[in-house]
Amino acid sequence: MASSRVTIIGSGNWGCVAAKLIMSNTIKLGFISRMWVYEECSSKWRETHGCQQRNQRKKPNILLGIKLGENVVADPDLDNAVKDATMLVFVTPHQFMEGICKRLVGKIKPDVEAISLIKGMEVKTEGPCMISSLISDQLGINCCVLMGANIANEIAVEKFSEATVGFRENKEVAERWVQLFSTPYFQVTAVQDIEGVELCGTLKNIVAIAAGLIDGLEMGNNTKAAIMRIGLAEMRAFSKLLFSSVKDSTFFESCGVADLITTCMGGRNRKVAEAFARDGGKRSFDELESQLLQGQKLQGVLTAKEVHTVLNNRGWLEMFPLFTTVYEISVGCLPPTAIVEYREHKSKSCLEHFTPQTLEAEPKPSDDKEVERNSNSRSELLE
Amino acid sequence: MASSRVTIIGSGNWGCVAAKLIMSNTIKLGFISRMWVYEECSSKWRETHGCQQRNQRKKPNILLGIKLGENVVADPDLDNAVKDATMLVFVTPHQFMEGICKRLVGKIKPDVEAISLIKGMEVKTEGPCMISSLISDQLGINCCVLMGANIANEIAVEKFSEATVGFRENKEVAERWVQLFSTPYFQVTAVQDIEGVELCGTLKNIVAIAAGLIDGLEMGNNTKAAIMRIGLAEMRAFSKLLFSSVKDSTFFESCGVADLITTCMGGRNRKVAEAFARDGGKRSFDELESQLLQGQKLQGVLTAKEVHTVLNNRGWLEMFPLFTTVYEISVGCLPPTAIVEYREHKSKSCLEHFTPQTLEAEPKPSDDKEVERNSNSRSELLE
Repeated sequence: MASSRVTIIGSGNWGCVAAKLIMSNTIKLGFISRMWVYEECSSKWRETHGCQQRNQRKKPNILLGIKLGENVVADPDLDNAVKDATMLVFVTPHQFMEGICKRLVGKIKPDVEAISLIKGMEVKTEGPCMISSLISDQLGINCCVLMGANIANEIAVEKFSEATVGFRENKEVAERWVQLFSTPYFQVTAVQDIEGVELCGTLKNIVAIAAGLIDGLEMGNNTKAAIMRIGLAEMRAFSKLLFSSVKDSTFFESCGVADLITTCMGGRNRKVAEAFARDGGKRSFDELESQLLQGQKLQGVLTAKEVHTVLNNRGWLEMFPLFTTVYEISVGCLPPTAIVEYREHKSKSCLEHFTPQTLEAEPKPSDDKEVERNSNSRSELLE
Repeated sequence: MASSRVTIIGSGNWGCVAAKLIMSNTIKLGFISRMWVYEECSSKWRETHGCQQRNQRKKPNILLGIKLGENVVADPDLDNAVKDATMLVFVTPHQFMEGICKRLVGKIKPDVEAISLIKGMEVKTEGPCMISSLISDQLGINCCVLMGANIANEIAVEKFSEATVGFRENKEVAERWVQLFSTPYFQVTAVQDIEGVELCGTLKNIVAIAAGLIDGLEMGNNTKAAIMRIGLAEMRAFSKLLFSSVKDSTFFESCGVADLITTCMGGRNRKVAEAFARDGGKRSFDELESQLLQGQKLQGVLTAKEVHTVLNNRGWLEMFPLFTTVYEISVGCLPPTAIVEYREHKSKSCLEHFTPQTLEAEPKPSDDKEVERNSNSRSELLE
């Protein structure tokens, strides 16, 4: 472990905070750290973070003003950044990961360990693909995940928070990640439920859209808490239907209930959804996103769409009224007020929004029991 | 069921909202309703609620302006109010219940069904006593509980919310209570875990004190979510240690995570704790309570004390650092900032706050396994 070399792939807010956390441990653990900085980033990055840069002509990104110091080498050359790494931390927007993985094939050590801090999933015709699976499958390496109630700028100023590492089998490797990230103000716990942890981080953004709509409609705390509870129940049900290994206890960890609370109280999905509801749905989420988020992306609407494709393909729409209603509101098929009427609402009304392929695609549950369990609701839906 | 007669014992905010919910069902179910109104209450009560009163010389209480209508008979005579009742709804402050039960002995029908909406517990030298057990034991009747994310004035204006009925054995009776309380804007679910449901409603107020301290210290959403998550974990652990029948799934119901969220976002415990922390703990909770709550009582500080007595008697203090720290802050033994340092904090420092009786009392766990499980930590603590 003393000879470990950590490379962080990504240099956004969360990437820099991850670097700061790792930095405070790598020095005492005797690790060497390196950070890949996307080459088209602003020239202010290095200045802001005060760290070394391998190649002066490259221009890294601006951030939270965190001083990372000379122990971080900001390297805009991806191949060079990863070539000696024994530990890779992935923390880029999720839509870039497929491309990055392709570029990394054959460039990394075969026994490198990876962790993904990325929220979101890829939905392909054959079904949903978690980012950790994408990394494992495309690069042939082990990959853990780290999720939790982690608003980057609060951790940057060292306010107390927690996070959850999800792992598949190797507890020892998971504990190494825990050791790498933990500080007195950042408490990390490992749980053997990689899909549960990762799905929490992904699905909570859909619930945050629902919570923001409630705020915009000024429905009060009872209603918001009820919608968050129902959202958490749908997160659990969806995760367990997709992966029978998912544990209920994961939803009591930081990645579950705590991240849901943070995201529904202060996140960008909540904020834009609130504006959407105040406006009676007149301006689209796309329009509000560009107006309110200064270039940051709205994950919740994209995830709602991805999850809806899965629900639709598998005939699960009626089992997930909250997820379904959030999607239908986000595409303008239902008004924002439908968020508290979803129990009465029938999802069939919105089927015209789907392409013939998604409607005709066969359900692809993760095991045979699920096909059986859900064939009735699916056939009812498609009648 | 058509011949059921419902009497509500209590006429505060929550009592009136309960009456409103019940009223919308009793009319169509053909029930008769009656409400006991404490005789020393203000004369504005009947006027405000526009309901019948059996005895004009009695003066009932002021409230939310809910029109209960002529179907509610506001009766200041407790004996008369309960004598024909087949269903009793208890919704008074918890400290009055022991006295009310004593007055009811021999005055009620022997097969009457009861439900308690009361949050809090009685702590006696022989251990904690839940309000539903107090009612069952003292009156020899079956008693369910109803808890949830239920801010009275939001339900009064018919905003969507949920609640949980906890029952011991008789599911049919529980479903009758569900039917009595459910409306399109108030969704009720029954779970077979009376202690779990009741303890959720009680213990969340301690966590709300912690959440309010975080607000007063301006620690941000990550920290608040982390403290709420840890609080929920201690609520589960404490409930399961006291009653081995308590189920994890109960904490995902409205009485669990949803009520916790509501109470930590908007309740009076949160509000007073926020003021306490902003003030650096200079003014006591008692002082702030009388200043900020216009006569309403602060349940969280009282519950923290009651739970602390249980933890101390059973040698469980070190297993519950958040509950312990909230108590020690509330009595001025630790500063408000200790709420985020509790992991390092050792509870021994505060033992001088306990009377010799509580220190010397034998642990009284609910079964022998618990004595064994906890004897080590207890002996360490008392060394």
